[in-house]
Amino acid sequence: MSVTLHTGENCHLTNSNVISGPAIRRAGRQTVVFERPPVIVGRMSVVGDKEGKGPLGKYFRKVEKDVKLGEKTFEKAEMRMLETAIEGAILDSGLSMRDVQMLISGDLLNQLTSSSYVARSLNMPHLGLYSACSTMTESLALASCMINAGYFDTIACATVSHFATAERQYRFPLEYGCQRPPYAQWTVTGAGCSVLSDRGEGVRITAATFGKVIDFGTTDLNNMGAAMAPAALNTLTVMLEETDTKPEDYDLILTGDLGKLGSDILRDLMTEQGYFLGSNYIDCGNMIYAVDQNCYQGGSGAGCSASIVNSFVIDKMLAGQYHKVAYLATGALMSPQSCYQGESIPCISHAVIMEV
Amino acid sequence: MSVTLHTGENCHLTNSNVISGPAIRRAGRQTVVFERPPVIVGRMSVVGDKEGKGPLGKYFRKVEKDVKLGEKTFEKAEMRMLETAIEGAILDSGLSMRDVQMLISGDLLNQLTSSSYVARSLNMPHLGLYSACSTMTESLALASCMINAGYFDTIACATVSHFATAERQYRFPLEYGCQRPPYAQWTVTGAGCSVLSDRGEGVRITAATFGKVIDFGTTDLNNMGAAMAPAALNTLTVMLEETDTKPEDYDLILTGDLGKLGSDILRDLMTEQGYFLGSNYIDCGNMIYAVDQNCYQGGSGAGCSASIVNSFVIDKMLAGQYHKVAYLATGALMSPQSCYQGESIPCISHAVIMEV
Repeated sequence: MSVTLHTGENCHLTNSNVISGPAIRRAGRQTVVFERPPVIVGRMSVVGDKEGKGPLGKYFRKVEKDVKLGEKTFEKAEMRMLETAIEGAILDSGLSMRDVQMLISGDLLNQLTSSSYVARSLNMPHLGLYSACSTMTESLALASCMINAGYFDTIACATVSHFATAERQYRFPLEYGCQRPPYAQWTVTGAGCSVLSDRGEGVRITAATFGKVIDFGTTDLNNMGAAMAPAALNTLTVMLEETDTKPEDYDLILTGDLGKLGSDILRDLMTEQGYFLGSNYIDCGNMIYAVDQNCYQGGSGAGCSASIVNSFVIDKMLAGQYHKVAYLATGALMSPQSCYQGESIPCISHAVIMEV
Repeated sequence: MSVTLHTGENCHLTNSNVISGPAIRRAGRQTVVFERPPVIVGRMSVVGDKEGKGPLGKYFRKVEKDVKLGEKTFEKAEMRMLETAIEGAILDSGLSMRDVQMLISGDLLNQLTSSSYVARSLNMPHLGLYSACSTMTESLALASCMINAGYFDTIACATVSHFATAERQYRFPLEYGCQRPPYAQWTVTGAGCSVLSDRGEGVRITAATFGKVIDFGTTDLNNMGAAMAPAALNTLTVMLEETDTKPEDYDLILTGDLGKLGSDILRDLMTEQGYFLGSNYIDCGNMIYAVDQNCYQGGSGAGCSASIVNSFVIDKMLAGQYHKVAYLATGALMSPQSCYQGESIPCISHAVIMEV
């Protein structure tokens, strides 16, 4: 591992209006290690009925029995779900809405409509992100950078996805009754929000690795796990190298939503690179549904890992079961238009290391 | 103006692997003032034929006579244009591709396809952003935060838009020959890229104001200027308050693409708030086309202000004509789907202050 470091030239203390920023340690070209790791002081997870009936059902804070949440459209239901997650996480943090200085969020809908429409009712600056199902870690990584640097004290990070809106937008409206191949995944109806703060007790984000866009040439829109596995491989190996850690140093290595097939591929690819992923490796997409729920390779969607991390994973961390977790959400960045035009599927994975 | 400041508690120098981050000055809840302002060390602008024939034609670095750039589809042409802008800006900076540590970019296409597909050929981490036509300032603001904090040395910021892809996606394919109302704007075919660095000479980004999502209830998809003006108003007044400046302190106040009508509305709204915008206020959308080019209220699109700032504006700054520029790109965050469902248009404006 080569460690690239700044010289100390950049510590200015010129007048009383100027305070020194935090110390930072740069591990490498893609990883930032935080000297003042932000704390997840509040969190919320909301999922749909199907997710609530899955193996992780009891961990989610709220299960919506009606997938339309009483709204007229699935899109409005998705917005409502995101709003519930953000408000719930802020409530959980014990802070007021006014204390939260920024919302960093994204979703799968074109033009990030869920995020934008929810943000208009929140009186705080908004950064809209898009990296498909990797948006939750892009958001956590950026918020951690902003808080560690002292720019803001408290930032909410959130994502959402909804099965019916994703089907309508990426594939076909539900009414068409399309059949799915056995290697497909099922978009999770769910939302998650974490409130990060520069103070407090709890799970801390100690490092972030920003991913590169990786495309191994997969063109099958239904086989997202296979498309995304190489991006997870790239970010995970970079993260391990740049932080000088091994897979066994983590109590949990968690990928976003590679599903069963994709996570098996990741294991194989990692083995080829000389890393062994043992029983400490799990995939959110692979966990969220039971086999008899007929979701084939498992869950996907920006809300998949966001809802699981903000429930099951942090619950287990606070209970002392996991101390150090590498969380790599993974995103497939194609659009229906790019696929119609014969393009393959570029993918990305951003990662954060969480410790308690 | 109330100045919110951290106490100095966050200066850690614990061992030789840890360096102090830069000093930062927090002006308020939405604005970050940079103590070590990043420098724009390289830039590039590429536009289409129509834009090349407009009043700013001679300033653009490259004018593409063929709006398809020799590609089979408009979408591929848009990607090629973005790639040209990024490669051109890196070349202009005198750096090599390897020196650039991150790409922060976004575009108007669903799932940010132009950005994602271009990023896969660049071997650097990628942050995908979406704030519609405000993406260029979101990108510059975030990159400045990252560089000022010492996380990365050099970051490329880029956006692109294309008339034909935007029409196909947001309205109708060109072949339909739809007529436009006189208050409509014309999506600019163009791309801009700035390479920001922690060292070097040139235009510096000295502050950034992150915008809130503002929705005054406009529902007419063709009247984007009217929808976006209140968002520009909000960010501009916050920026002025939080940096304790007045409009006359700037040689240039530049909005992204409100167009003629939208910028007139902004002048009126600012007057109501007690600020007078004089001849130092101009709008990129209002400048890019001549009246006889039949673009009605002017240009719009993520590539509009990005191409103008990276040509005309920085040219004039380096020539000594403008010393201090407030650049507020403005974005309308609706989607076709949200409009079909009767929603109004939420808008946002992120701002940066550039000085030389």
